Amino acid sequence: MGFKDVFFVCFLFVLVSIVVSGRELRSISKPDPDDGVGTARWLASQNTWGVLSTISLELKGAPFGNVVSFSDGLPDKGSGIPYFYLTTLDPTARNALKDERASLTVSEFSTGSCGKKDPENPSCAKLTLSGKLKLVQGNTKEAESAASALFAKHPEMKGWPKNHNFNFYKLDIEDIFLIDWFGGPKPITVDQYLRPRM
Amino acid sequence: MGFKDVFFVCFLFVLVSIVVSGRELRSISKPDPDDGVGTARWLASQNTWGVLSTISLELKGAPFGNVVSFSDGLPDKGSGIPYFYLTTLDPTARNALKDERASLTVSEFSTGSCGKKDPENPSCAKLTLSGKLKLVQGNTKEAESAASALFAKHPEMKGWPKNHNFNFYKLDIEDIFLIDWFGGPKPITVDQYLRPRM
Repeated sequence: MGFKDVFFVCFLFVLVSIVVSGRELRSISKPDPDDGVGTARWLASQNTWGVLSTISLELKGAPFGNVVSFSDGLPDKGSGIPYFYLTTLDPTARNALKDERASLTVSEFSTGSCGKKDPENPSCAKLTLSGKLKLVQGNTKEAESAASALFAKHPEMKGWPKNHNFNFYKLDIEDIFLIDWFGGPKPITVDQYLRPRM
Repeated sequence: MGFKDVFFVCFLFVLVSIVVSGRELRSISKPDPDDGVGTARWLASQNTWGVLSTISLELKGAPFGNVVSFSDGLPDKGSGIPYFYLTTLDPTARNALKDERASLTVSEFSTGSCGKKDPENPSCAKLTLSGKLKLVQGNTKEAESAASALFAKHPEMKGWPKNHNFNFYKLDIEDIFLIDWFGGPKPITVDQYLRPRM
């Protein structure tokens, strides 16, 4: 085994380490900041978790953010619509069943592609989808797609305890707040977001 | 250079890659899940960003989460109280000046110590601090500590444009929601959180 071979093995090792850490490579496909719709859809598709804010029953109407996993579809085949798997053992689902108003917030920082930028730097993109958090009725086509979308990105969910009564929920989007560059939020309509031109 | 030397260099390469990715090592000091207060303080101290939820003016009272940077003090010398550097060019500060009710949500997932656990798995800890988001008056002792706390963890902030009128804000904590294990939220009082026994 010559020096070149060993060097090649070394190189492979490092490459595998980077792929396993899985954070830097995802950034390759980040759309240009001018493409607000593309960036918003990219953030919804690349992130696997975010903060879902609802109006708190326990805290008498105060806003309450909670860490949740979500999925907008199969990897790289997202619809832009976030689906969730929630139980009313947790306040977020209880809040939503009383007051549907909710927002899901995700950060590019979680994907690892902001590098050394501060998470609050406008060029480290951030997305808030606001709307109504709705229970997806069981035994429907939509419940089936929600299950495929969520279980593909969150395989652990399949084994979550049946007696905790997890249900699928979705966010019906009514407003989109995207910061992906300096100069304030990008104006994006829900229609543009849901039907991006490729 | 023998095979052993090359192997050693290889090993060092991989180790350096892991250290540079910088995510796994921070987990060392995570408190035991039984120590709810310690875990909550650890989450507030280790995270550099979170989602700050307010009641939206533009969305007529709907909950609105926004990605923000924060700091509870100098690294490993946190007070547990999150400070922010916000501008009213952004809706979150505008919302808070009208209605102070707010919550800050952070996830252990951001620190890299959840490993392969799903972000919604209760053993991947999550913390929501709820209370009132208050402007810190300029030229006070508290404004000075807020500046030290924030600029230590977010050096980029020092250079943010003066004409954007950034101001320091803090969350006056009134309620603590912590999930760090199975079996529902840990009961933690604000007093316990602010004065943990070491």
